[in-house]
Amino acid sequence: MGVFELVVLMMNYVGVFAFAVSGALKGIDKDMDIFGCAFLGLATAFGGGVIRDIIAGNVPPLAFRSEPDFIVAIVAITVTICMYRRVSNVIGLLPYFDAVGLGAFAALGGTVALNAGLGPLGVMFASMFTGAGGGIIRDVLAGEIPLIFTREFYATAALIGGASLYILSSFVSLEVAMFISALITTILRIASIKFGWNLPKVKNSVI
Amino acid sequence: MGVFELVVLMMNYVGVFAFAVSGALKGIDKDMDIFGCAFLGLATAFGGGVIRDIIAGNVPPLAFRSEPDFIVAIVAITVTICMYRRVSNVIGLLPYFDAVGLGAFAALGGTVALNAGLGPLGVMFASMFTGAGGGIIRDVLAGEIPLIFTREFYATAALIGGASLYILSSFVSLEVAMFISALITTILRIASIKFGWNLPKVKNSVI
Amino acid sequence: MGVFELVVLMMNYVGVFAFAVSGALKGIDKDMDIFGCAFLGLATAFGGGVIRDIIAGNVPPLAFRSEPDFIVAIVAITVTICMYRRVSNVIGLLPYFDAVGLGAFAALGGTVALNAGLGPLGVMFASMFTGAGGGIIRDVLAGEIPLIFTREFYATAALIGGASLYILSSFVSLEVAMFISALITTILRIASIKFGWNLPKVKNSVI
Repeated sequence: MGVFELVVLMMNYVGVFAFAVSGALKGIDKDMDIFGCAFLGLATAFGGGVIRDIIAGNVPPLAFRSEPDFIVAIVAITVTICMYRRVSNVIGLLPYFDAVGLGAFAALGGTVALNAGLGPLGVMFASMFTGAGGGIIRDVLAGEIPLIFTREFYATAALIGGASLYILSSFVSLEVAMFISALITTILRIASIKFGWNLPKVKNSVI
Repeated sequence: MGVFELVVLMMNYVGVFAFAVSGALKGIDKDMDIFGCAFLGLATAFGGGVIRDIIAGNVPPLAFRSEPDFIVAIVAITVTICMYRRVSNVIGLLPYFDAVGLGAFAALGGTVALNAGLGPLGVMFASMFTGAGGGIIRDVLAGEIPLIFTREFYATAALIGGASLYILSSFVSLEVAMFISALITTILRIASIKFGWNLPKVKNSVI
Repeated sequence: MGVFELVVLMMNYVGVFAFAVSGALKGIDKDMDIFGCAFLGLATAFGGGVIRDIIAGNVPPLAFRSEPDFIVAIVAITVTICMYRRVSNVIGLLPYFDAVGLGAFAALGGTVALNAGLGPLGVMFASMFTGAGGGIIRDVLAGEIPLIFTREFYATAALIGGASLYILSSFVSLEVAMFISALITTILRIASIKFGWNLPKVKNSVI
């Protein structure tokens, strides 16, 4: 494994951790018990990838065969549950960890599609859904309209990451393409938080 | 491709268009941004067929391999987003386009099941879910109880279309069966709109 | 088929019946029409197993190939719809039938995973999701946060049943392991109803 792939893998673990924390926090927010919080944490961390794999016919999904990811998620959930008040002190950092994870998830998800021989739209969909699908599932299970449908610049960053991956993979080695694409997604997402980017809403943008 | 199959295919494009519009409109209604509207439009147009294909083991699902359908859906979503106010002028027509699509979706979905060797219940389920599944997913993603669970004569029209397809396929060629079954579903659905049909509710019908 | 397997199979039918009734009742509660009630009944009875099979690559899912289960569910839904008021008289018994079903579903779901060569976590997940997944889907379709995320000792009983199955299968024959594991889940669930067990909530348990 080259150094670039290693970096993306490290980013992936940061993402699994941040996604699992965000799911568990949503569970606490909705007054769920520890099973509900754990379920939401795991669904947020792995739901996007599981659905991507089911759609691609790649079953059992990768998430069910990757023990390190599972352990990272369980640790994240346990820490969140056991140290809820202390975690809330550092909660302002969560979106940044989440952005790192979004980049890695988009790059890794897009690579699965690329290896399956899919075209640019397939790769972009896989990147977007791997990165954003977990959050959609988390919000539906919590009885809310998915946040990323109404606010934030989030799934779009993953779509751009997927497009970058597809284009770059023709010019540089796959692991370099993954690394750059993950970086692009993460930087776009962090910039969107810093500068308060949102996609336009339709009611304000009609001709 | 025979003329009847061509008609069903044309009806299918009308349906993809109408379903995508209805998803995008639901997104606008819920104050979603353009990503949310596009996601809901695509989920409404293709969600039922994707789940049917996943259940049937037919992966990657047809929707991910059918570029014309994708283009029709994207055009529908773009038109809805860009010309929201003008679209709302013709919105009274949407249920009729939707009915045309329901007929085609039910006929095409049932044919997938028929070709897979399924029995009458499998064909009816495939017809119903291909036609009505997208709307169920749209409403869940919008935080609502699926409309067709509480009102309208909708999924039932698709179930009857599926049953017709199964019976007819023993007597006439498949494409004629598809055509007649699509027509039956569409006519039933339009009649239900015209005459205000609803299925009975339980609270009013207890013994 | 041995006597123990037969008992688990009988428990399974009790479960299909109870799960379908609980789905149909939820539909009535939400003022759904008879299609909505039937859809919720079937989704509650078979949704967990269908998703388990999709994840395991076991398609078309077992539920679509098991006519006796389908007939039991349809009878349960019809009885619930036609005799709603009379059913409500015996509704206090439903959680006990449901507990019997939970045990059977957990044992049978775990056995699918065991036969597929999965490890302890996979077996536990399969037991839990086969038993509890239908209820999660029912509640999401009814626009509610899944009950078992916030209250009750339910999924945990199925998780413990899955763990028992995995351990026992090394020591006794599979059908005895299934029987004992089903019994453990059912007894734990009934005890939790009797004694009002709930899992801890995080807000009350922080360090």
